[in-house]
Amino acid sequence: MTENDTGGDSADELRFHVNGELVRASEATVNVRDRGFMYGDALFETLRAYGGDIFRWEAHANRLAEGAEILELDHGLSNAELKRRVDETLAANELSDAYVKLSVTRGVQPGKLNPDPEVDPTVVIQVKPLPRGGRGSDPVWDAPATLQTVKTRRVPDRAIPSRAKTHNYLNGILARLELRVTDADEAVMLDGDGALAEGATSNLFFVRNNALHTPSLDGPVLPGITRAEVLDIARDEGIPVREGRYKPDDLRDATEAFVTNSTWELRPVASVDGIELGGGPVTTLLSRLFDARVEQRHYTE
Amino acid sequence: MTENDTGGDSADELRFHVNGELVRASEATVNVRDRGFMYGDALFETLRAYGGDIFRWEAHANRLAEGAEILELDHGLSNAELKRRVDETLAANELSDAYVKLSVTRGVQPGKLNPDPEVDPTVVIQVKPLPRGGRGSDPVWDAPATLQTVKTRRVPDRAIPSRAKTHNYLNGILARLELRVTDADEAVMLDGDGALAEGATSNLFFVRNNALHTPSLDGPVLPGITRAEVLDIARDEGIPVREGRYKPDDLRDATEAFVTNSTWELRPVASVDGIELGGGPVTTLLSRLFDARVEQRHYTE
Repeated sequence: MTENDTGGDSADELRFHVNGELVRASEATVNVRDRGFMYGDALFETLRAYGGDIFRWEAHANRLAEGAEILELDHGLSNAELKRRVDETLAANELSDAYVKLSVTRGVQPGKLNPDPEVDPTVVIQVKPLPRGGRGSDPVWDAPATLQTVKTRRVPDRAIPSRAKTHNYLNGILARLELRVTDADEAVMLDGDGALAEGATSNLFFVRNNALHTPSLDGPVLPGITRAEVLDIARDEGIPVREGRYKPDDLRDATEAFVTNSTWELRPVASVDGIELGGGPVTTLLSRLFDARVEQRHYTE
Repeated sequence: MTENDTGGDSADELRFHVNGELVRASEATVNVRDRGFMYGDALFETLRAYGGDIFRWEAHANRLAEGAEILELDHGLSNAELKRRVDETLAANELSDAYVKLSVTRGVQPGKLNPDPEVDPTVVIQVKPLPRGGRGSDPVWDAPATLQTVKTRRVPDRAIPSRAKTHNYLNGILARLELRVTDADEAVMLDGDGALAEGATSNLFFVRNNALHTPSLDGPVLPGITRAEVLDIARDEGIPVREGRYKPDDLRDATEAFVTNSTWELRPVASVDGIELGGGPVTTLLSRLFDARVEQRHYTE
């Protein structure tokens, strides 16, 4: 890499996994007739490797399988085979603490929009280094999140089920575009009736009356793996948990709030729509317990 | 091409245009970090070439420009430059009557979901031969369409504006997947309130009381170029035209119906939800007048 490398980032030095082959990131390609490119007809999982090991692999693999069922995308690959390719990618890049994006597309098919039941999938694994997790780790985010409620509404489940994590991500991109004229860095998206749904790339949590609240999965809300982990930790710890339908004011009037996803883990919310919130004891406690689980599962012998 | 070419279709012999270069279809690729692949963060137009010339190029170019504005995708390419690449692709393949798919993506960018205002777009042009249009032409469809109303609802405009024709096409794919257990070949999609919106890849038209009806663009309906052409022809011809909000029964009870898109042109509807409709004099008249416009604009000296 030289300073004159136009558009080059460090990813050019990484090896990605494309259809069973390890290739340089700059040479990692898919055909333009791939349905993943033409239609976003593909599923993905954002994974976190801690100490060389994928956090909650089973949960991610199950969600991917559910998405494949929804899209009737019978890719024919076992979870073990997918995991083997992920591990191979991490090893090839000598990465133990990393971000991993695993994508499975419906591949190239004859004809146009109608999917053929016979699938020759395209499997792509992208990686990049991320700081170590667990106790005493540095968060991957620079600062607490500043949230802004946006006009773009979440795609309803009747149009595309939110349980499927797909390459159709323009809805979240349109939400983030609205933030260009603001100081916010995550969008709060509402459902068609104006209830809280989720962030563009995160699940929403807030604390009121000492109880932890999060929008229920009955709405257009991705069943986040970190979301599930946090709920499990809270229940373990005896913190009252409520999953329901909430209004934007419920979030704005909260005493604490945080957002979650697999790379951010728990990220405290500094403000919502310009109203200051800040973290608090519940957020701090849950973050430490999350770190402890990461530590225990991945960094101890 | 040999008969043993697995998975190969004649497209392997074609040349596609990728970022200013003509390449074999099998070698036409995009990087896996391209936002078109990762998020479907891309726009496209399906074009029809008649006699070597693109039908209604200006209308397609304008719609693409409107989509780019909605996505804040400032690709920096003039309509003339896009047209030049389309023409170059047709010439390289010695095609005069063809299907053309022009895609413009936000390209590879640093960072993750947030789009950078600085865009180095990826421009892809795919082509394949299609029968000659105009008078006495063979339609590209084998038979009139059989329609089936599906459960998958159209993505509402508040989630992703329907005026933007994007690579986020899973909504239509889910609709088409519902047809696997039926004899139908096009899905009738409703909006969130149960009103008629459009087909998975087509606009809907029906005739009742001698007037031509089509769902209005106030709903989640793509402003189809063929749709606009048909409305223009009908008005020219003095056929009463109604654009409005309709129920599925309005279509089922129609005396004639047809669907339109740039490749099908006007395709008569044989049945809706198992109820036979068939074509009729208005559909035949409009088809002939459409053919006459194609003939006049593209095949006369």
